[in-house]
Amino acid sequence: MKVGIMGTGVVAQTIAAKLADLGHSVVIGTRDVRETLSRTAPDVYGNPPCRVWLEAHPKVKLLDYPGAAAHGEILVNATSGGGTLEALKAAGKVNMEGKILVDIANPLDFSKGMPPSLTVCNTDSLGEQIQRAFPGTHVVKTLNTVNTMLMVDPGRLAGGDHHMFICGNNAEAKQKVGQMLTAWFGWKHILDLGDITNARATEMLLPIWVRLYGSLKTPVFNFKVVQ
Amino acid sequence: MKVGIMGTGVVAQTIAAKLADLGHSVVIGTRDVRETLSRTAPDVYGNPPCRVWLEAHPKVKLLDYPGAAAHGEILVNATSGGGTLEALKAAGKVNMEGKILVDIANPLDFSKGMPPSLTVCNTDSLGEQIQRAFPGTHVVKTLNTVNTMLMVDPGRLAGGDHHMFICGNNAEAKQKVGQMLTAWFGWKHILDLGDITNARATEMLLPIWVRLYGSLKTPVFNFKVVQ
Repeated sequence: MKVGIMGTGVVAQTIAAKLADLGHSVVIGTRDVRETLSRTAPDVYGNPPCRVWLEAHPKVKLLDYPGAAAHGEILVNATSGGGTLEALKAAGKVNMEGKILVDIANPLDFSKGMPPSLTVCNTDSLGEQIQRAFPGTHVVKTLNTVNTMLMVDPGRLAGGDHHMFICGNNAEAKQKVGQMLTAWFGWKHILDLGDITNARATEMLLPIWVRLYGSLKTPVFNFKVVQ
Repeated sequence: MKVGIMGTGVVAQTIAAKLADLGHSVVIGTRDVRETLSRTAPDVYGNPPCRVWLEAHPKVKLLDYPGAAAHGEILVNATSGGGTLEALKAAGKVNMEGKILVDIANPLDFSKGMPPSLTVCNTDSLGEQIQRAFPGTHVVKTLNTVNTMLMVDPGRLAGGDHHMFICGNNAEAKQKVGQMLTAWFGWKHILDLGDITNARATEMLLPIWVRLYGSLKTPVFNFKVVQ
């Protein structure tokens, strides 16, 4: 399948590498290809610059946002939450129309220091903002509640005995994404919360996620809904 | 131990009944005793009026907020979040000074319809508001992330294999409350998140709690942090 991933950070890289390994045709998208390729320093998390990563993953291509969006039969939003709406506007509504957009981003606000707060929450969410801005695109919010490593390999934690949440307005799109999470990454337990307004609920998990990261000293944890 | 519980609703009743059964001296507090006893209709959740409940639980006494607070060596805030600060002001700072207040309340806002949003979140919390208003009281936030039945009987779900979060500024107070959760109710897995600012994180679990309640069709569930 042709997949267009918006973003070039560690989330985009991890998803792209996994999907390319599975044989999919993957393009990652950035605002300015030349600028992205000119970076020589590691990112703020210590990850190598995009050019180095691309050399190690020759199956993955880098294009600008419109190019990546046009390439994808299915799209993934792996930009940082603060830059998501601008990135998707640059990608172009026409390139996203009628497609599924898997939204992994969280509207984290680091401007007030650590731990981050959210730029939007409670009565709205980033997932809803995206859906309102692109009504012809089927936004499916998922994967935003776990660390990048777990997104593509849930089995590394407790044999996968924990939950992934999913929500969105289009039942068929949600079903397709749920099947992909299982087939591509091995997710066994997916909980459908309902329409895209449930993005409020999963994005509002980030504050406790960040606090637990601080307490547990590892990002490799997840929630299991025990019932 | 002498326990003063602020509130007369189902949370207050459930905690009070359990602690009275364990032999503690329990007083529940209300704004206006006469008005509370005059109610003859079930509450909005269908629970019997307070007078009927008190007749069935003769070991539990009803007093006004200052009376209940003065009685307690340890205090429990089981008022509804919207009325908490007013209730505690009525209870009187002098009656709460130097004591532990176990804060179970959530700042749920039903005024915008269902599902509820929060009246405060993200960069502040009800737990912090209480701590700021009563700096001489040791506020410990806990139990607010599960249904009332589970608060006092976690073993009824998966043998207790799920988590309770706790936070607060005073380490000794948190330790005492943690020991009480285990000794009184049987909580096996208690996660200390840190200071009272972590109340933001646990109160912000309510949106997904409410959505899961809708999806799972039962309030008897809880989160396990799988690591």
